[in-house]
Amino acid sequence: MSAPVEFYFDFSSPYGYIASEKIDALAAKHNRSVTWRPFLLGVAFKATGMAPLVQIPVKGDYSVRDFQRSARFNGLPFRVPDNFPIGAVSATRAFYWLDGKDPVAARNLAQALYRAYFVDNVDISSADNVINVAAKLGLKADDVRAGIGDAAVKERTKSEVDGAIAKGAFGSPYIVVDGEPFWGSDRLDQIDRWLATGGW
Amino acid sequence: MSAPVEFYFDFSSPYGYIASEKIDALAAKHNRSVTWRPFLLGVAFKATGMAPLVQIPVKGDYSVRDFQRSARFNGLPFRVPDNFPIGAVSATRAFYWLDGKDPVAARNLAQALYRAYFVDNVDISSADNVINVAAKLGLKADDVRAGIGDAAVKERTKSEVDGAIAKGAFGSPYIVVDGEPFWGSDRLDQIDRWLATGGW
Repeated sequence: MSAPVEFYFDFSSPYGYIASEKIDALAAKHNRSVTWRPFLLGVAFKATGMAPLVQIPVKGDYSVRDFQRSARFNGLPFRVPDNFPIGAVSATRAFYWLDGKDPVAARNLAQALYRAYFVDNVDISSADNVINVAAKLGLKADDVRAGIGDAAVKERTKSEVDGAIAKGAFGSPYIVVDGEPFWGSDRLDQIDRWLATGGW
Repeated sequence: MSAPVEFYFDFSSPYGYIASEKIDALAAKHNRSVTWRPFLLGVAFKATGMAPLVQIPVKGDYSVRDFQRSARFNGLPFRVPDNFPIGAVSATRAFYWLDGKDPVAARNLAQALYRAYFVDNVDISSADNVINVAAKLGLKADDVRAGIGDAAVKERTKSEVDGAIAKGAFGSPYIVVDGEPFWGSDRLDQIDRWLATGGW
């Protein structure tokens, strides 16, 4: 099996959510695994001067329409959460806490967090809500809470966010295949062909 | 035949070029025609505070790579022109001058201008170069030059640009199907399904 596909995403990103529901199967089709790497778009925006989509005049209104239509196009349930966009620091730290112990469980937590936010309207900017989502996967609330607050986990999170930005992640999802970067859930078709052909 | 597909584009837009090579066949597949409507992104950017892609840190570098890869993905010849991006006022006026007399010829001129710029590296920000491209289609240089400078053509151009922005065109291509807006050459797959199903 060749190198894993690197999947960088922000928990507040609708297109990241769409990609999260597709990327594992797409990679598996080409005998690849996926390394899930949440990062924080707010930090990336400082490097680029960009702003959250929905804050941009005209484009913001279009984007909300496009989130919803693109989710339906991909056959996925979706709603714009009441609190949107958010800073997902607690969710990201919970992920890296768990990733240090069990990467598969961390991937499952990421998927559960995305679904909680974009399907069930759970505000995952709240640490309590992140802990509740994790609890449904069998994780102990006290363990998750301690993990989110752990100094080493905070440091790992900062390092991963910096690493994603150093890789060029300016938006979400940002997917790297054998060194080739792809931005957006609308590049999954290009990724499919890249994995099949090794580039073109 | 139902209402035409509205195709808004800027002559300086690589993704507009990609869409221009696909949109007529896509619409024809669903028994639709296409109304070609060049506009000026620079004017739209004033409404949104946006900037040309290549001027955005990090995202700009990615975008150049994505232009090239997306063109190859679509089987199209492409190069980043030496002078890029440009203000395409002369090209846009030449289009509307001709559109007032012969919309099919204007569509063919638009395609020739796009190919001149993104395949043959002809700087179509120059009125002389626009006139040369038009001359290859059999248009008389003096007529094109007079058209570009004509007060009524300038007024028509301004009105069309304002009209595109009023329709919500914040980027290029911006394609409207029965009132539903789609932004980007990467939405052609959604447009295909929209035309087939009337929405979803």
